[in-house]
Amino acid sequence: MRKKQLTEEAYVSGIKEGNRFILSRAITLVESNLPADVELAQKIIRHFSRDEEKTIRIGVTGVPGVGKSTFIESFGEMVADKGLKVAVLAVDPSSQVTKGSIMGDKTRMERLSNHPNAYIRPSASGSSIGGVARKTREAMLLCEAAGFDVIIVETVGVGQSETTVKGMVDFFLLLMLAGAGDELQGIKKGIMEMADCVTINKADGDNKKQALRAKREYANALHLFRQEEHGWHCSVITCSAIEREGINNVWQEVEKFVDVRKQVGYFSENRKKQRLEWMKESIEDELMQLFYRNEAVKGHLQETKEKVMDGFLPAYSGASELIKLFTREN
Amino acid sequence: MRKKQLTEEAYVSGIKEGNRFILSRAITLVESNLPADVELAQKIIRHFSRDEEKTIRIGVTGVPGVGKSTFIESFGEMVADKGLKVAVLAVDPSSQVTKGSIMGDKTRMERLSNHPNAYIRPSASGSSIGGVARKTREAMLLCEAAGFDVIIVETVGVGQSETTVKGMVDFFLLLMLAGAGDELQGIKKGIMEMADCVTINKADGDNKKQALRAKREYANALHLFRQEEHGWHCSVITCSAIEREGINNVWQEVEKFVDVRKQVGYFSENRKKQRLEWMKESIEDELMQLFYRNEAVKGHLQETKEKVMDGFLPAYSGASELIKLFTREN
Repeated sequence: MRKKQLTEEAYVSGIKEGNRFILSRAITLVESNLPADVELAQKIIRHFSRDEEKTIRIGVTGVPGVGKSTFIESFGEMVADKGLKVAVLAVDPSSQVTKGSIMGDKTRMERLSNHPNAYIRPSASGSSIGGVARKTREAMLLCEAAGFDVIIVETVGVGQSETTVKGMVDFFLLLMLAGAGDELQGIKKGIMEMADCVTINKADGDNKKQALRAKREYANALHLFRQEEHGWHCSVITCSAIEREGINNVWQEVEKFVDVRKQVGYFSENRKKQRLEWMKESIEDELMQLFYRNEAVKGHLQETKEKVMDGFLPAYSGASELIKLFTREN
Repeated sequence: MRKKQLTEEAYVSGIKEGNRFILSRAITLVESNLPADVELAQKIIRHFSRDEEKTIRIGVTGVPGVGKSTFIESFGEMVADKGLKVAVLAVDPSSQVTKGSIMGDKTRMERLSNHPNAYIRPSASGSSIGGVARKTREAMLLCEAAGFDVIIVETVGVGQSETTVKGMVDFFLLLMLAGAGDELQGIKKGIMEMADCVTINKADGDNKKQALRAKREYANALHLFRQEEHGWHCSVITCSAIEREGINNVWQEVEKFVDVRKQVGYFSENRKKQRLEWMKESIEDELMQLFYRNEAVKGHLQETKEKVMDGFLPAYSGASELIKLFTREN
């Protein structure tokens, strides 16, 4: 049964007061695909769109098994203990298939979710990465409007999710394991080059020595592959999320990063760039949806694809034929 | 003064005969933005679109100063000497600004351009990387139709040109210099991860020892960062383009690569994927052009951008407003 809808004003004032029940309902609205919900959600967000750049948005990625949940729980709790309000979101473009492989179960971060300063939201699902991205970005804006200081966005490393998350955060953290080599097999192309900080997790017990060696190796490799960008060079640190060791170093790294980026003026510039990029992506996403949902296009798409794929029709000609169908009808 | 236009049949038979004069005119047609030219070009290309996958498409990238022209000249000449026909094209999205910074001057590769088996084409210009990409891809198809066996596509490393070239070739070669560190500053994010082969150039004289050390370092780093893909692991070799040493090793690497990829079936699969991707990109490119050229959109774009950038209007709302203007008018 559907709950009675709140008014725009009720949402806005509830969020401003930091009412989590209303925040959650507003995020549900943002995640809805119903036209009426989308419209109301946009009205609500307009009240809060001028974010004050006092918040910190942190992206966390890493292959399964690297201890992402444990890390986010330990890290989030440490930050929440400092008196900062922490929200955890996730980008999982696969969730429409797997029905929520990530954080579908809130108990996954039970300790953090019970912390008075923390808020955990299971991931949105969507038909496209663009759709999921929009929902997550808007959930993030709502959390900030509700007074959250630190937003942690987790990526599952499926499809384009890392690029998407990198494009919505200030600080992008890559979690890795010691024992360079085989464990890296799962790291996708280009991810290492997006990181602002590589954190080697599970640096505990017998693993500690190996973790320190891995740290040196990664630092060397990063020196070879990466250059300083806007005052910051990707750093490498070790921690043990489960033992809660070194977690504070990660936070210090975040603070150092924010200081540097604000000093060189890039913190704000990056957020401006991200907003423009979001609009550009939204336009592309919407236009492509209009295109592929067009009846005439749908009627000819498969046939055209096959001809192009097998080289019987040049790609550009195939595109032109479909676009003619689209503009005639639209 | 404009030359008299040839007929579709004259173009097609001329290209089939390998007539370079007609090939050049056909490529000029492909590069034109005049609607009549675009239409005729598409008709011509349709005659040749079923490429037989007997050709090899090689992308070459590297920062300025790495010796790209010298390398392509030495490499091209060596391949042409084997009796294979070699065409050299370039993707230079900056050329509409610099008026042809790359290969605008054919004398840059004088020796190769005088080789009976070689054909060098200065880079196309265009208003968008999508436009330049289409022109280069179609020039490539025409060269293949004219009997060229090896197509070398050079990228200047501006904007998205590497990604674009990677998406149109079978084998992507990254030229580097010895003395790892500072020289790498110019290498953009992600390029190293696209390469099928890293070739360290200028491995001559006093540089030789350093080049071998760099080879080891890169091989280690690649082992750390990259995994085998469809039977192939990115290799590292050294050469001296100017001394013509080791150039043959690069060719052997290409042949080995093609063998492996054909064996695992990925050579053909990759070309099919690329063709579909080209169509998808063409659709996006054309739709976005229709959108941004729309009068109503143009009239409101700057104002909307500013509101979004400064955070006064949510990105998705800005996008929706502009799209409403577009669909109403279109």
